[in-house]
Amino acid sequence: MVETKQDFMTLIEKIEEQSWYKKPIGFGLARVDRGQLTPEKILQATYPVVNWNENFGSAAVFLHALRQTGTELDTSKSELVCDISEAFVDQCSEIFKPFLMQAVGDDHRNVQVTAVLSSLKEHNELKCEDYKMVFIFEDDKPQSVESVYLKLYALSTGKAKLRSLNLDGAFGQLHNCAWSNGKPIELDWLRTHEVTLKLCGNYPEITMVDKFPRFLSHVIPADNTRILETSKVRFGAQLAAGTTVMPGASYINFNAGTEGAVMVEGRISSSAIVGAGSDVGGGASILGVLSGTDGIPVSIGENTLLGANSCTGTAIGDSCVIDAGVTILPGTKITLSEKAVAAIAEANPGKEITPLMRGKDFLGVNGVHFRQNSTNGQIIAMRSTREVKLNDELH
Amino acid sequence: MVETKQDFMTLIEKIEEQSWYKKPIGFGLARVDRGQLTPEKILQATYPVVNWNENFGSAAVFLHALRQTGTELDTSKSELVCDISEAFVDQCSEIFKPFLMQAVGDDHRNVQVTAVLSSLKEHNELKCEDYKMVFIFEDDKPQSVESVYLKLYALSTGKAKLRSLNLDGAFGQLHNCAWSNGKPIELDWLRTHEVTLKLCGNYPEITMVDKFPRFLSHVIPADNTRILETSKVRFGAQLAAGTTVMPGASYINFNAGTEGAVMVEGRISSSAIVGAGSDVGGGASILGVLSGTDGIPVSIGENTLLGANSCTGTAIGDSCVIDAGVTILPGTKITLSEKAVAAIAEANPGKEITPLMRGKDFLGVNGVHFRQNSTNGQIIAMRSTREVKLNDELH
Amino acid sequence: MVETKQDFMTLIEKIEEQSWYKKPIGFGLARVDRGQLTPEKILQATYPVVNWNENFGSAAVFLHALRQTGTELDTSKSELVCDISEAFVDQCSEIFKPFLMQAVGDDHRNVQVTAVLSSLKEHNELKCEDYKMVFIFEDDKPQSVESVYLKLYALSTGKAKLRSLNLDGAFGQLHNCAWSNGKPIELDWLRTHEVTLKLCGNYPEITMVDKFPRFLSHVIPADNTRILETSKVRFGAQLAAGTTVMPGASYINFNAGTEGAVMVEGRISSSAIVGAGSDVGGGASILGVLSGTDGIPVSIGENTLLGANSCTGTAIGDSCVIDAGVTILPGTKITLSEKAVAAIAEANPGKEITPLMRGKDFLGVNGVHFRQNSTNGQIIAMRSTREVKLNDELH
Repeated sequence: MVETKQDFMTLIEKIEEQSWYKKPIGFGLARVDRGQLTPEKILQATYPVVNWNENFGSAAVFLHALRQTGTELDTSKSELVCDISEAFVDQCSEIFKPFLMQAVGDDHRNVQVTAVLSSLKEHNELKCEDYKMVFIFEDDKPQSVESVYLKLYALSTGKAKLRSLNLDGAFGQLHNCAWSNGKPIELDWLRTHEVTLKLCGNYPEITMVDKFPRFLSHVIPADNTRILETSKVRFGAQLAAGTTVMPGASYINFNAGTEGAVMVEGRISSSAIVGAGSDVGGGASILGVLSGTDGIPVSIGENTLLGANSCTGTAIGDSCVIDAGVTILPGTKITLSEKAVAAIAEANPGKEITPLMRGKDFLGVNGVHFRQNSTNGQIIAMRSTREVKLNDELH
Repeated sequence: MVETKQDFMTLIEKIEEQSWYKKPIGFGLARVDRGQLTPEKILQATYPVVNWNENFGSAAVFLHALRQTGTELDTSKSELVCDISEAFVDQCSEIFKPFLMQAVGDDHRNVQVTAVLSSLKEHNELKCEDYKMVFIFEDDKPQSVESVYLKLYALSTGKAKLRSLNLDGAFGQLHNCAWSNGKPIELDWLRTHEVTLKLCGNYPEITMVDKFPRFLSHVIPADNTRILETSKVRFGAQLAAGTTVMPGASYINFNAGTEGAVMVEGRISSSAIVGAGSDVGGGASILGVLSGTDGIPVSIGENTLLGANSCTGTAIGDSCVIDAGVTILPGTKITLSEKAVAAIAEANPGKEITPLMRGKDFLGVNGVHFRQNSTNGQIIAMRSTREVKLNDELH
Repeated sequence: MVETKQDFMTLIEKIEEQSWYKKPIGFGLARVDRGQLTPEKILQATYPVVNWNENFGSAAVFLHALRQTGTELDTSKSELVCDISEAFVDQCSEIFKPFLMQAVGDDHRNVQVTAVLSSLKEHNELKCEDYKMVFIFEDDKPQSVESVYLKLYALSTGKAKLRSLNLDGAFGQLHNCAWSNGKPIELDWLRTHEVTLKLCGNYPEITMVDKFPRFLSHVIPADNTRILETSKVRFGAQLAAGTTVMPGASYINFNAGTEGAVMVEGRISSSAIVGAGSDVGGGASILGVLSGTDGIPVSIGENTLLGANSCTGTAIGDSCVIDAGVTILPGTKITLSEKAVAAIAEANPGKEITPLMRGKDFLGVNGVHFRQNSTNGQIIAMRSTREVKLNDELH
């Protein structure tokens, strides 16, 4: 019996010593939406609490409770997705008892999960088939809808860094669904019931058809973050506090986002990252690895302005400006005056700055203003009027 | 009495022999949404089944049943919109009886419609004023909301080819409404009830104000088609299987769309068509006949890339690329090097390729890469690196 | 007792003579949404009727009734936000009695407000904490959520001119919320209940996270106005009758909009105004005062076309065209041929037109076509083919 926190700690140590035990990278209990026609198909997994390189005590409890209540645990694979049972819920409640009273707000969120399940059980409302216990042991290709969602949660909650997780094959794991009021519906279910639904006036309002849900369906942003339209941010994107996403031409794809307060009025393609204090102007396009870049994910520095309808296919440094309507691709030839070469070189000690450079040559170059000369059409680079902080360690 | 399928066939033959009978191009039973203040105004027509150059037996049944139950049929006009009655439902059920048991899934969808109406009637829930029986006999200007919707259905389900139907005056037939949860509301009804709705906290969430509904409110796309935001595709658009519509700057208007798997991150204006395997980049704009083109609807070939924020106002061939940010209008002067002339000519036997061409001269020319030279601002055309399949019949 | 309209008039005169009375610029009764965790926080204010420089009789009644029923009125500040009581509702009903029978449709809307509150009271459904009586006496910085909303209503209903109101600090007054089904939710409330909501499948569908609501949540547009997607127009924008807002890359921010029928497929930033008959092409960007302009709000004239993906950072006159993809910033150097100088000068008597002008020099210049010469990249201005109406009074 676990009566005290000390009992709890002792038990955790004992669990962690066992040969079958393996420390997970991430874990959580998910509520799952199943296919209306094919219930074995998981359409969505919603995690009230996401654990990522943390809360290993809770992980041990969940694994132990599964094992104690009859689940055969195979911790040798990269991930583990388990059904839950009433006995599992009881077992977890038993072990978490010493923490129950403090499990409010941000504290002991996994205990809160157990408490809610317990309460549902008491009211005879616990449907165990609605839940899955999910563990990721190695950052391998995801093998299930549940692990894809857990990784996307890790990215969108900021617990994992953008581009840091293996998402190979994630698209293949997810099912394309119609979504209505935040819930996924199998397209075949719609087809089967189309005649009746339409004739009776009950056809659902479909907000989208996609494999991914939206960021705001799963994640609560920081108090000073604004997303003016939910469709503009896909689940799996990451928005640092203070980021604003406007509803015009903007879009932030999964595994892409911002590292500080950024004004986003344009597109941040999958794998692209924008630094703090920067501004992605209306209709500006940061290309993804699949189109127009040279295959290297694009990073935009801090305090940089991408003008309206500009297009960027290569990395841009800090304190840069790309004028409205200007396109900088990796191969774009950019002309620099003698003065510009000197000024940009001064702001970028150690970088080679020459009178004719390609877009891709500006990797790590700060304080550049990219323009098109309106009298002769030439794409030019000048020193921007934005201050560049030199890295003291380099000098 | 129609007891067997043979009886049914015999009846159909007899109906089709009658002088009043006319084969419809399209027909279907619609559930209609009526004005809240002016119920005679039809705001929306929802078809569970769309018949287009097909299922003439069912058409004969419906016309016959209307006639037998007291409707005066005038089949001399281009279209016919009829009220239905309980007697009509009984009559159809009677005639369709031999097919009732097989009317499931994709089979005998018109029989399914009748069966649902019959079942509603049995439960005393059939409100006949909610339904209309609609026939289009000739592809003339639509004369009713119901026939506009039937034509838009024919386009959006892919049963009619894009640009193939007469939609003249369609805008004039439809009513501008507020839409909430997929249902149209008269603006005047909102005005009349504004004070009460707002004070009681019951003001509806309005998703749009328009004459047209959205594609996803009426059509179930193919399993591999994705529409990441419902507002991005208007009803009357056509999306071939495998098309993906992203939520950034994209939009597909009615009577426009794709002929194969296309990635759409830009605008496809009304009357524009994009070929299989092509990519409409983020913010790319394909102009419609009303602005920037020379009045000819724009077609984009297969396997062609329109770069981010590019703009196209004239037809573009297969395997072409327009670089990000480049605008090609019909009158744009485009410069070709000697090498480019030779390479593009080789890929396009029989086409006249010259060192200075206009945008509109590239009609039917494949394998072209349109760029802006970043050192002198010149719009140039080169041979793209994409393979062009030569048409064997031409050589 | 107020039995006749004459009694009413006499009372109003008496009220207006009193020393405490002050004529408000704007006033109205608002239904307020309060914070779920912190009810003293007003998240949204919904006005069924907006009074702006009008209906002073009703203002006098409301002020008088507040005073009579125990509210201490301080009319010395720029604005006044008062709680209401059942006694207040009774008092207003009493005074408005002579107008009750005519208070329908567009007539006596303030009386309608009182009547609805009265009726709620009779049914014991009046929750006084849901309402506030709001007055603005001077157009100073708004001091409350309620006055910010009243000013945004004045703009969005067209009762106040764009750019005419003091909105300094409005952002600071409003609270950032999650919005679901038109209702604001405190982010902290979501955090507090996240575990339970998600585990029970009750997590709300969040449509946006912002301080501002959407235009269509508060305002009923004119019959011929269309907004194809609600997220595209922020509350506080103004749309003249006949304006159409497409769902591609468009966006109209608060304190921005149109002065006549305009086709909007691009962005109208805060403080920008577009004249009647103009066309903001797909993805076109009209910059706001904070980025790319020289700090002067941009006005676009009448009958002017901003081509697809064009960008405008300075005022443009009537009957102008900016070609698709062309950017005109205040500092853009624009070259004019001798012929162009003559033709534009002819259409603009008294304006100085020269062979090399900057974008900002075109303020008030009509009939200009801005293009990029595709053979040499030069930004040029020509006389547009659009007719310019000369102002007779000037000649």
